[in-house]
Amino acid sequence: MKITIIYDTSSGHTRKMAQAVAEGAGTIEGIEVVVKHVDDASAEDLFSEGVIIGSPTYCGLMTWKLKALFDKSQGKAWGKVDGRIGAAFSSSGGLGGGNELAVFSILNALMNYGFIVFGLTEYAGKGVTAHYGAVAVGDP
Amino acid sequence: MKITIIYDTSSGHTRKMAQAVAEGAGTIEGIEVVVKHVDDASAEDLFSEGVIIGSPTYCGLMTWKLKALFDKSQGKAWGKVDGRIGAAFSSSGGLGGGNELAVFSILNALMNYGFIVFGLTEYAGKGVTAHYGAVAVGDP
Amino acid sequence: MKITIIYDTSSGHTRKMAQAVAEGAGTIEGIEVVVKHVDDASAEDLFSEGVIIGSPTYCGLMTWKLKALFDKSQGKAWGKVDGRIGAAFSSSGGLGGGNELAVFSILNALMNYGFIVFGLTEYAGKGVTAHYGAVAVGDP
Amino acid sequence: MKITIIYDTSSGHTRKMAQAVAEGAGTIEGIEVVVKHVDDASAEDLFSEGVIIGSPTYCGLMTWKLKALFDKSQGKAWGKVDGRIGAAFSSSGGLGGGNELAVFSILNALMNYGFIVFGLTEYAGKGVTAHYGAVAVGDP
Repeated sequence: MKITIIYDTSSGHTRKMAQAVAEGAGTIEGIEVVVKHVDDASAEDLFSEGVIIGSPTYCGLMTWKLKALFDKSQGKAWGKVDGRIGAAFSSSGGLGGGNELAVFSILNALMNYGFIVFGLTEYAGKGVTAHYGAVAVGDP
Repeated sequence: MKITIIYDTSSGHTRKMAQAVAEGAGTIEGIEVVVKHVDDASAEDLFSEGVIIGSPTYCGLMTWKLKALFDKSQGKAWGKVDGRIGAAFSSSGGLGGGNELAVFSILNALMNYGFIVFGLTEYAGKGVTAHYGAVAVGDP
Repeated sequence: MKITIIYDTSSGHTRKMAQAVAEGAGTIEGIEVVVKHVDDASAEDLFSEGVIIGSPTYCGLMTWKLKALFDKSQGKAWGKVDGRIGAAFSSSGGLGGGNELAVFSILNALMNYGFIVFGLTEYAGKGVTAHYGAVAVGDP
Repeated sequence: MKITIIYDTSSGHTRKMAQAVAEGAGTIEGIEVVVKHVDDASAEDLFSEGVIIGSPTYCGLMTWKLKALFDKSQGKAWGKVDGRIGAAFSSSGGLGGGNELAVFSILNALMNYGFIVFGLTEYAGKGVTAHYGAVAVGDP
């Protein structure tokens, strides 16, 4: 099973999250992980069995570059990836700054494409969870 | 596989949607469908392999009765239904009246519990889709 | 100008937030502040010039008691409070646990009623903001 | 008072909505209305007393071009437009196709910038409302 992690980054925090997610996923046997900056990603990358999208929180949403990937890939991938697995993560400058909303904007786009999405009920640590996808405030 | 459809209804429109969803699901071999009004539902019903929640659109969200089911079932079911399948539908009085947002409020609660959720890319008819779950304006 | 703060609370954290918001608002000249637990609130309280709703984060949404206030007040207040000011706050158990989504569920209901809503761009402190309404993780 | 309507369009439907909104706003005395396609808009346009953003529904969100306007204007306009008025509208291919969610993505970004936002409780016609902003399915 191939998982593709596509991320955008501004301060480098979301890149760090992408690397942490990749390391976590890479420890599972039988999982091949590919990490791509949004500048290097294309519609083909949305055909992986699992797609995880990470974005800095910009105006409470994913960045325009990630949105452009979804918009421009519609002709090739939309409606052709039904039932594949999608997830999201985001990094923001402040608590209450929109990171959950940014995660939800990604889940929204993934569901629109046909991906099935999910969160995690477990707590990653005291007071840190990923019910809708991992979030971080500042340096993760 | 057992699917439980839990609905609330005000004008009767959401009940009609629940019946249509039940008929559709019932035609699939190996699927047992149970339909319950929220007044008759309890935490146990959230342990089905598939849970579909339908609500009238009230203030752009599911009704308080359905929310009470989620809130009061937390001790018994939260975090114990990870990986089960969840979906949502809603009926509203007007286009733009909040039915998509009501559907998203249900998906939000389902994800929080640990359900995996999804929408449909296919169109049910001309100009009618269920990208996040089925919606209806007025009589479905 | 009268501001009514209506809150629900589970661990007491949201009550503390309600008190802090009330103290902040009370320092502004000409503002009368009333704080009510949801059990003591009714449709009449939604007619204040400003209404601020605070909720523990339950399943990424406001609690069922607060939702019941909105649902049951529709006949008396819906569409009769257009242009009044609304805001929201929420307390959650964990970062990424749904507090922003709970705030958005409140703003959604307030907008549906006709309230105008807003967030704050200023940072309350390093890494703490209230772009959509104040949020807290654990003890505020 | 100056209102700037910024829109993106794909099939031409959102342009039609922009023109209808402009005509409606233009009938109010003392209101100057400017309509701009997103390709012609810049950070300066966000400094109008009222800003209305219209987008085709793409993946349940505003288009990447409109998002790019918000992202790239942050340095100039973010946090400097507090208290100005913002609103949104969207056109989608299908009922349930994400137009309300697209409207909410715009309100989210506007609130993040500091705008106050609102919906309308009145019904525009039988079964058509704009509780969070105007939406249309297909040709408006």
